[in-house]
Amino acid sequence: MNYSIIKRTLGSMLMFEAVFLVLPLVTAAIYWEGAFFSFLIAIALCLGVGKLCTRGKPKKETIYNKEGFVIVALSWVVLSIFGALPFYFSGSIPSFIDALFETVSGFTTTGATILPDGATIEALPKSILLWRSFTHWIGGMGVLVFIMAFLPLSGAQNMHMMKAESPGPQVGKLVPKVKQTAKILYTIYSVMTLLQFVLMLIGGMPLFDAINTAFATAGTGGFGIKADGMAGYSNYLQIVVMVFMFLFSINFNSYYLIGKGKLRDAFTTEVKAFLLIVFTAIALILANLFFNGVVDYGYSFKEALRHVAFTVASIISTTGFATENFDLWPSFSKTILVLLMFIGACAGSTGGGMKVSRMVMLSKEATHEVGRILHPKQVKKITMDKRVVEHEVVRSLNAYFTAYVLIFVVSLLLISLEGYDLVTNFTSVVTTMNNIGPGLELVGPVGSFSFFSDFSKLVYIFDMLAGRLEIFPMLVLFSTNTWKK
Amino acid sequence: MNYSIIKRTLGSMLMFEAVFLVLPLVTAAIYWEGAFFSFLIAIALCLGVGKLCTRGKPKKETIYNKEGFVIVALSWVVLSIFGALPFYFSGSIPSFIDALFETVSGFTTTGATILPDGATIEALPKSILLWRSFTHWIGGMGVLVFIMAFLPLSGAQNMHMMKAESPGPQVGKLVPKVKQTAKILYTIYSVMTLLQFVLMLIGGMPLFDAINTAFATAGTGGFGIKADGMAGYSNYLQIVVMVFMFLFSINFNSYYLIGKGKLRDAFTTEVKAFLLIVFTAIALILANLFFNGVVDYGYSFKEALRHVAFTVASIISTTGFATENFDLWPSFSKTILVLLMFIGACAGSTGGGMKVSRMVMLSKEATHEVGRILHPKQVKKITMDKRVVEHEVVRSLNAYFTAYVLIFVVSLLLISLEGYDLVTNFTSVVTTMNNIGPGLELVGPVGSFSFFSDFSKLVYIFDMLAGRLEIFPMLVLFSTNTWKK
Repeated sequence: MNYSIIKRTLGSMLMFEAVFLVLPLVTAAIYWEGAFFSFLIAIALCLGVGKLCTRGKPKKETIYNKEGFVIVALSWVVLSIFGALPFYFSGSIPSFIDALFETVSGFTTTGATILPDGATIEALPKSILLWRSFTHWIGGMGVLVFIMAFLPLSGAQNMHMMKAESPGPQVGKLVPKVKQTAKILYTIYSVMTLLQFVLMLIGGMPLFDAINTAFATAGTGGFGIKADGMAGYSNYLQIVVMVFMFLFSINFNSYYLIGKGKLRDAFTTEVKAFLLIVFTAIALILANLFFNGVVDYGYSFKEALRHVAFTVASIISTTGFATENFDLWPSFSKTILVLLMFIGACAGSTGGGMKVSRMVMLSKEATHEVGRILHPKQVKKITMDKRVVEHEVVRSLNAYFTAYVLIFVVSLLLISLEGYDLVTNFTSVVTTMNNIGPGLELVGPVGSFSFFSDFSKLVYIFDMLAGRLEIFPMLVLFSTNTWKK
Repeated sequence: MNYSIIKRTLGSMLMFEAVFLVLPLVTAAIYWEGAFFSFLIAIALCLGVGKLCTRGKPKKETIYNKEGFVIVALSWVVLSIFGALPFYFSGSIPSFIDALFETVSGFTTTGATILPDGATIEALPKSILLWRSFTHWIGGMGVLVFIMAFLPLSGAQNMHMMKAESPGPQVGKLVPKVKQTAKILYTIYSVMTLLQFVLMLIGGMPLFDAINTAFATAGTGGFGIKADGMAGYSNYLQIVVMVFMFLFSINFNSYYLIGKGKLRDAFTTEVKAFLLIVFTAIALILANLFFNGVVDYGYSFKEALRHVAFTVASIISTTGFATENFDLWPSFSKTILVLLMFIGACAGSTGGGMKVSRMVMLSKEATHEVGRILHPKQVKKITMDKRVVEHEVVRSLNAYFTAYVLIFVVSLLLISLEGYDLVTNFTSVVTTMNNIGPGLELVGPVGSFSFFSDFSKLVYIFDMLAGRLEIFPMLVLFSTNTWKK
């Protein structure tokens, strides 16, 4: 294990975190909030520890898969611990475990909160609220992808880290150089965020709200700054947010290809499957609401369509904003939403979940097996977008699926020790592991994670990180084999 | 597609069903019940249609994988349709869909019932009750395995059918000849059933109860004949049933090996994992009951141990008998039970579920992937009992897992259309797909499946068959490619 390079990368990462913390610091200065000093101390600590870690030259520059995974996992842990400091120092979140939960929920773009109610959220200092939303934006595209775009690291090094941090079963480089790829991704990300911000300002959203909402949407995070979530904003604003939730769930490669004029290539199998799932889900939920008497829920058709489309966008993008308490919808609709939580967004987007491309590949695998029974001599390979999916990718996909289920099951058992109802337990693990935010029952859109014990919160923290980093970095971090000489 | 051989095998199967129906016919004669004529007509129909199908010689004797899977799937469907006739003709179950549900639940050794309550069950004619229990015994070891033991079929033919009907990821032949293997399996099965029967008679169980209970336990089915399930029997009888539920969940190969004096070989990785899961589950549930104040549930330690061990045996063996309403236990215990439902028994036993060996292989697969990240150049293969698991088996295992989840999800959606609570919906699909019997909430140990619509019942019928035949035969049956010229 190349410890010196791990230490060095973590150090650089902390320096970057100090830079990110300047935004809420400035906000605190503008509104002259007491949290200013909390941010100042946090920045000083990040810089100090960061400096300490980046001193001297590493003995070897080379890193392997192993180091790549460890760096990614540790980066996210360290980033979250330091990111939690302002919440803790300012007294906004008095318990450190709670502050850590909130920060991990932010960086992993989950959006689940330990703040018990809307009033508590609205009462927070503006700088703290901004930092909370900003963590979504930072975590959305990946913090190491950011570093790659700016630090001089060798290509091989980058690739190992990118593999571990990027969402999806296959890592696609847009251009031959990883560094260049990272820059392109961040450019698309920033331009889209800015576009949403401007469109919301045009719609009359206050400046502060617009900044926060843009960050939380772009990262598909879901932290809100209002007690009533998105429900209080105009229809126009809700629709803008909805559209951007969909846009941020699509593989960023597609936008790059559209920019290059390759419109046909941009509509990959995954994007088509994503759109199919979205339209089917909206249609089924709408039908279900109608057959169960929409009137009971007080919707007109147009309202119902808006609420349903918004909710589907919010869940499949794994954002977690709400205009309606979908926990009150009929079982069939709720079941669809829970399934969407597992599916999640497209690979290479800022969204979470298991990713649409994984679902497509798994379905193809099962169909292939039936084909093999019918025609045992016919050797067919699984293809995506007319390219054969490598055996390695399929194997890794299956292992991911299994590991995912294992972690899910263990988490569920640990959470159920608290004795809450099965739906709360189940959906709380679903929503944290897939980085969504709300679940059903006690953790529904009007609930929170405040009532859980510190032990359960640590389980959720692990699940949110495991979900965001797609399981293996966290398993490698906790595998005893990793640390053997 | 070799239609003539399919027709022929289905015909033979119906002739055998006629033979099986003689047992309840005799019972009806002894007690002189009106159901006698229902059984007589059913037998006549089986023989008539069976004769019609087996007329003439098939053009080709050869069957392939495809035909094997289709034969197995169709056999189980046809067997159930004809098996449902006595329930329907006798008026014991007035709706044919209900009668079919009950018969499928019997043959697949599920044990879920549409009979609304204990009083209705106790009021049934004895011959009908016996047929209900006997379907468990017939379905437990597999009806085609039975045919193989007695009909002169070629080895290759047998192997294709055995592959499709036998539970577990790998088909193990005990001796080179399939026919001989089938005979050995049925001998072990019969001897063990007889042993349990005798032990229960010694314990003072009435003859009729003992016959029924032995059938239902041996097949790991779970249909009871008493309103209070197993609760009314003495501790001794409950313990006998418990022990045999465990015994019938273990791979029958192990008993063959023990008989051959190969004690060490009998304790395979799967058997060890099974025992580990059983003891862990019992210990955890006991601890959970204690920390939640066992006194609330009115148990002493000895009672608690007996109830917990019985319940774990009943669930992991996928029998479904109950001495206690475990739906009242705390969340953690219920979560463990639901997980045990998925795991199920050992491959090559009469139990259902996904099978312990599959779980072991999947866990090994995930662990291997972490190993590959740490040491990319080290090529290791997954082994079970020191033998390398073939790539084909792993691939098929993954496809099984995916197909299982897909069918599960679609079933869950269809069931949830009725609007019952999520726990009822979820566990009703779990319990039917894994051939257990009871679930939680409305389908808990004191509930039934009577209140569901015919549409939902058809979904459950499909799930029970898919679970018993391990997914692929049913998928092949419904795949359009199967029926293409």
